Amino acid sequence: MGCFNQVSSVLLLSWLLVLLLCTEESLSRKPPLLRSIPRGRYGRTHRHPSLSPSTLQDFQTFYYDQTLDHFNYRPESYTTFRQKYVVNSKYWNGPNNSSPIFVYVAGEWDLTEGDYTSIVADIAPQYQALMVYIEHRYYGESIPFGSREEAYRNASNFGYLSIGQALADLAEIITYLRKNYSAEHCPVILFGGSYAGVLASWFRLKYPHIARGAWASSAPILDFSDIRPRDEYDTIVTNDFREASENCYNTIKKSWAIIDKIGSHPKGLEYLSQKFKTCSRLNTSKDLKDFLFGTFEDAAQYDAPPDYPVSTICNAIDGLPPGTESLTRIFAGINATFSLDCYNTTPDSDASLKMDPWTWQVCTEYMVSTGLSTNVTMFPRNYRRYIGADQCMSLFGIPKRPHWLVTEFGGKDIKLILKRFGSNIIFSNGLRDPLSVGGVLENISDSIVAIKSTQGSHCLDMDLMSPNDPDWLVSQKKKILSVIKGWIKEYHADLGISGLDLRLEI
Amino acid sequence: MGCFNQVSSVLLLSWLLVLLLCTEESLSRKPPLLRSIPRGRYGRTHRHPSLSPSTLQDFQTFYYDQTLDHFNYRPESYTTFRQKYVVNSKYWNGPNNSSPIFVYVAGEWDLTEGDYTSIVADIAPQYQALMVYIEHRYYGESIPFGSREEAYRNASNFGYLSIGQALADLAEIITYLRKNYSAEHCPVILFGGSYAGVLASWFRLKYPHIARGAWASSAPILDFSDIRPRDEYDTIVTNDFREASENCYNTIKKSWAIIDKIGSHPKGLEYLSQKFKTCSRLNTSKDLKDFLFGTFEDAAQYDAPPDYPVSTICNAIDGLPPGTESLTRIFAGINATFSLDCYNTTPDSDASLKMDPWTWQVCTEYMVSTGLSTNVTMFPRNYRRYIGADQCMSLFGIPKRPHWLVTEFGGKDIKLILKRFGSNIIFSNGLRDPLSVGGVLENISDSIVAIKSTQGSHCLDMDLMSPNDPDWLVSQKKKILSVIKGWIKEYHADLGISGLDLRLEI
Repeated sequence: MGCFNQVSSVLLLSWLLVLLLCTEESLSRKPPLLRSIPRGRYGRTHRHPSLSPSTLQDFQTFYYDQTLDHFNYRPESYTTFRQKYVVNSKYWNGPNNSSPIFVYVAGEWDLTEGDYTSIVADIAPQYQALMVYIEHRYYGESIPFGSREEAYRNASNFGYLSIGQALADLAEIITYLRKNYSAEHCPVILFGGSYAGVLASWFRLKYPHIARGAWASSAPILDFSDIRPRDEYDTIVTNDFREASENCYNTIKKSWAIIDKIGSHPKGLEYLSQKFKTCSRLNTSKDLKDFLFGTFEDAAQYDAPPDYPVSTICNAIDGLPPGTESLTRIFAGINATFSLDCYNTTPDSDASLKMDPWTWQVCTEYMVSTGLSTNVTMFPRNYRRYIGADQCMSLFGIPKRPHWLVTEFGGKDIKLILKRFGSNIIFSNGLRDPLSVGGVLENISDSIVAIKSTQGSHCLDMDLMSPNDPDWLVSQKKKILSVIKGWIKEYHADLGISGLDLRLEI
Repeated sequence: MGCFNQVSSVLLLSWLLVLLLCTEESLSRKPPLLRSIPRGRYGRTHRHPSLSPSTLQDFQTFYYDQTLDHFNYRPESYTTFRQKYVVNSKYWNGPNNSSPIFVYVAGEWDLTEGDYTSIVADIAPQYQALMVYIEHRYYGESIPFGSREEAYRNASNFGYLSIGQALADLAEIITYLRKNYSAEHCPVILFGGSYAGVLASWFRLKYPHIARGAWASSAPILDFSDIRPRDEYDTIVTNDFREASENCYNTIKKSWAIIDKIGSHPKGLEYLSQKFKTCSRLNTSKDLKDFLFGTFEDAAQYDAPPDYPVSTICNAIDGLPPGTESLTRIFAGINATFSLDCYNTTPDSDASLKMDPWTWQVCTEYMVSTGLSTNVTMFPRNYRRYIGADQCMSLFGIPKRPHWLVTEFGGKDIKLILKRFGSNIIFSNGLRDPLSVGGVLENISDSIVAIKSTQGSHCLDMDLMSPNDPDWLVSQKKKILSVIKGWIKEYHADLGISGLDLRLEI
């Protein structure tokens, strides 16, 4: 699950190239293909950072000695690890003006220069804001126990990776910074997308004394079985493709049975391997189906301008002459998007999954809705690709706690609960994003609001602003920034100061 | 710190008798005299349960298999322990009517029959409420690791005792009960006094999806050094005594120097031991001063009708003939309250403190404001009786985390924060209670309200209603219950049901 990235075919290409070129070690750190998990939900593509060296100098990296376990007092809990955070104070107008602090919450990825190029950097100058970027524990450089090998060694060491701990990390670092910068009366606004958006909104709910507001872009906070018993992710994927082309949708829908039929023949896998230019020979037709599944899901999740990968795929599928067989069309769709010499369809090994922090999170607490939808989709019926309790037990030796996250953070009857409680959260969504099925799509109260667009895709509104942004995207960003401006003005009014003249110019 | 108890001299007498008669083992479990901690803040007296056997039958005891650590996923965290809770469904009108669930939160004490006789039991019939009483982890029967000896053995086992874990326990049990009783649309209202009131209000803030509202009686949620840098507890104690009698106040104020002077003479401690009828010979005059200190603090904290222990003490001090020496007067004050054969002035041993869960909580996270007040009190100046970091390190081998609780739960600038966030909390206080210095005494918003009375003492308003309640107490209880009724009516309105006809008859 990832964000801040407008996916074009060029980017997808670079991303896959990176994967292909990765060493085994780096792949095992964060495999984008989590077997049995739709990778579109968890994979992440990187926008290339395009900051000049002089601009990069404004982003200073620090490390906070973070408490290993915030919620118990066993001797081990006092152990600390270095948690990475980055500060850019170039535009900050300082504590005397109660200028805001914008905290970019990183999710299940390494915090890199690519993260600096989000809308936070766009708007910081006009808001005269301090920019802070905080890496998530167990990712990037923020690794307890001295090394990934140690941190990911077993459940005893991995065990400190939980959302509750990650939010408490944010609480400690932000509290420390507010004190250190004499900024205790500077409003803190959190920015997060996708999983990090979930974190941002939950942080506002749990630590209202630390963050004055949170913008959660494409945050599927309702995507849990206890809340939404059916999984409709692939319904949206299907709708996206069907909207692009009825013929394309039908071609994909029919392809699975053809793959199964061919795959069951002697030499069928050999044929499919050649047909789809797999980098190594397919062991099962399921590996091919998983690869295609994930590719279509990614295309829908990141179906963004200017290239719109769903249309790219469908145009290629539809563009071949009448009479062309289905699998040739499917491959043409894939190839139009990536255009690689070969395609990696090999699933991640258990050895690499065991060393993957996101797999750990999915296996312990972050269990998205796994109920089967009754809707007809373009995918095979009852084709389960979620990581199961058995596999988690085999990987890590511990059972799931399937209900805890909803007990901890709520989500059931969200309107009944939050219309009378809490404030200052923006849930933004693009409805072409299949993860929007787990998003908050209606206003909950005057200050817990849903801002959405039918055209938007995953986290698109948190990207850097661009002259190429279509009108609806400009409009969505304007709405969001106007709400945030309101929070800051209200805070300044509560303090009894006039605050800044925040003109909204985007 | 304790609640639900109207202290009369009779009760104080029984309580001290219980202490004197206790075995060493039970004393070490919960010493009411925590050395270096004002016992008035932490000691607790028990109202004798006066329930008939048939009424007692309505209170059914259950045990929930509670998760040892909710916030990490280490293998040990999955261990469970039996947490005690009690349910009385006699008056509950069931889920179809969305009848409320009243949860009485127990604090740092054993949950016993005495806890059933609070205002919760008074009002349950007219609210047609389910009554639930939940014991706190590491107290009473809710002991992890199979026994107190194991649970309190060392920091590794004690380490799971924290407020964050205790709140998560409540979340799990209440969620389980709501599901089990098909009561997911029954409003849950929390009741807690003193430390348990702190828990109740923090629970509403952290788990709004589980509790619809919380009444926190005499809950010193602002009593932390990060929030209130000066300790004014003894300023209130002093005011209470001075208001009762200027002469009494002066007598007490002068007594400390006299005790010191006599104590420094050869045979002085022998003299003081006889004078104050100590059960064993005093080792230092400090032990006597600690005993007197604690007695005066308790008297102020629980200065309740009909006996008003502060007046009882002062009447005895003032009632002796002119010319009577000060220490004779002081002892007369003590004796008028307790009338015992001898007085136990021996401080708790390190061995017993090491086995005391409240000492653990104070040593790890629950650190009340320890700054010295600049006010003149009737106590010796700069006389520190708080448990210090050194002693905690020596007892448990771990350092304090002095700032975490305020980072976790807030409290600084509480009005600035909560006027825009949260709802449905009542903070009630009696201003004669010295713990009210750490209470919320002004309304924060329309639905986070402060209800107080100048005459009230610690948690008095949560006691069973009595025909002897003075008018101001009846009025305070009425105000509180009216607010709670409003929460339930609003919830029913939000659900679109007419709800119950809740007449307010107390």
